[in-house]
Amino acid sequence: MMLPMQRFTLQVRSRSREELIDVTRDVQSLLLRVGVARGLCTLFVPHTTAAITVNENADPDVQRDLLEHLRRLVPRDSGYAHAEGNSDAHIKSSLVGVSVTLPVEGGKLALGTWQGVYFCEFDGPRLRRLDVFVIAADPESDGGLR
Amino acid sequence: MMLPMQRFTLQVRSRSREELIDVTRDVQSLLLRVGVARGLCTLFVPHTTAAITVNENADPDVQRDLLEHLRRLVPRDSGYAHAEGNSDAHIKSSLVGVSVTLPVEGGKLALGTWQGVYFCEFDGPRLRRLDVFVIAADPESDGGLR
Amino acid sequence: MMLPMQRFTLQVRSRSREELIDVTRDVQSLLLRVGVARGLCTLFVPHTTAAITVNENADPDVQRDLLEHLRRLVPRDSGYAHAEGNSDAHIKSSLVGVSVTLPVEGGKLALGTWQGVYFCEFDGPRLRRLDVFVIAADPESDGGLR
Repeated sequence: MMLPMQRFTLQVRSRSREELIDVTRDVQSLLLRVGVARGLCTLFVPHTTAAITVNENADPDVQRDLLEHLRRLVPRDSGYAHAEGNSDAHIKSSLVGVSVTLPVEGGKLALGTWQGVYFCEFDGPRLRRLDVFVIAADPESDGGLR
Repeated sequence: MMLPMQRFTLQVRSRSREELIDVTRDVQSLLLRVGVARGLCTLFVPHTTAAITVNENADPDVQRDLLEHLRRLVPRDSGYAHAEGNSDAHIKSSLVGVSVTLPVEGGKLALGTWQGVYFCEFDGPRLRRLDVFVIAADPESDGGLR
Repeated sequence: MMLPMQRFTLQVRSRSREELIDVTRDVQSLLLRVGVARGLCTLFVPHTTAAITVNENADPDVQRDLLEHLRRLVPRDSGYAHAEGNSDAHIKSSLVGVSVTLPVEGGKLALGTWQGVYFCEFDGPRLRRLDVFVIAADPESDGGLR
């Protein structure tokens, strides 16, 4: 017996050194094509100077504030040992994280009203990958509100 | 073939702007009712100014220290662009994260001895939601200690 | 019907107070023995002063920079309330996180070229545990590159 899981890879192109790229619509398009009524969607970033996060999708200032504050917490130059000059990007990657698991409902990501999914570029511009895993569940299995 | 996954929604009421709310018992109650001997439990916060974390459940001072230190790392006022005055809460949400996957064993969360599950409110007081997904596994499949 | 999930426990021995321990090979060995062609692997740390992360495996300086910068962000002494003197370790645990879900492909962790998996010790030296959950998926289910 095998689990009904599908694997996809999205390409993400960043245009500056630090950037939040909204990938919500790309993931939604995949899910619509896959046609999973209910399940889970695991996103995985196979890079060490990038990350994935979920945050507000309405006011772009929130994304700007997040990037700017991460720069304050982890400055680009701070006497790091790593010679490539991107230790800040590696540190941010571990703080934000490279993997997130999201709910799927009615064939779409079941995010909160104000949530979007953001690929976090910390050492661009580069062509990046985002791995997407979709796990199908029984749509009759809603436990409801408790 | 469909995966035996069940979905539930818990309501969480916060009483102050910043607060760690212990939801371990609520998730445990759900699991006992569901009756899954072994599996995984994914928790998802559908909000952009809140988060979910696992940390020490014995001394409440640990929770106080975590909230207080997050305030130091991400002050409420710090020249943010976002006009709503809660950029700190959005940033904390991305640092702590909105999704966590936990083991289920013997019908309960298989946490470490000192671990509890905490809903992190960063912009309350509010009535919040916590989505809970329970995936059942074969209880005969223990690989043991390596 | 039951999900083909297997559970394992790895032992991890830390040798200093703060240390990143590369557990990539240990997890890979488990996966090879389990023989799952495709799937997901969830790692869970059942401790409150440790964490799990994925980061660069080539230059050890990156790991040193990460530990050192976490010390700057969360100093060992900072007027914490918790009397045990390890509040810094608890806070780092919530910032980095205790759970991560990784892809499995061809019987191995499908990490990026430069990625390794690191158990993060923040209050050692100690003998620690790392819980490993392996979920098998249909190897025919590749959705390909989009």
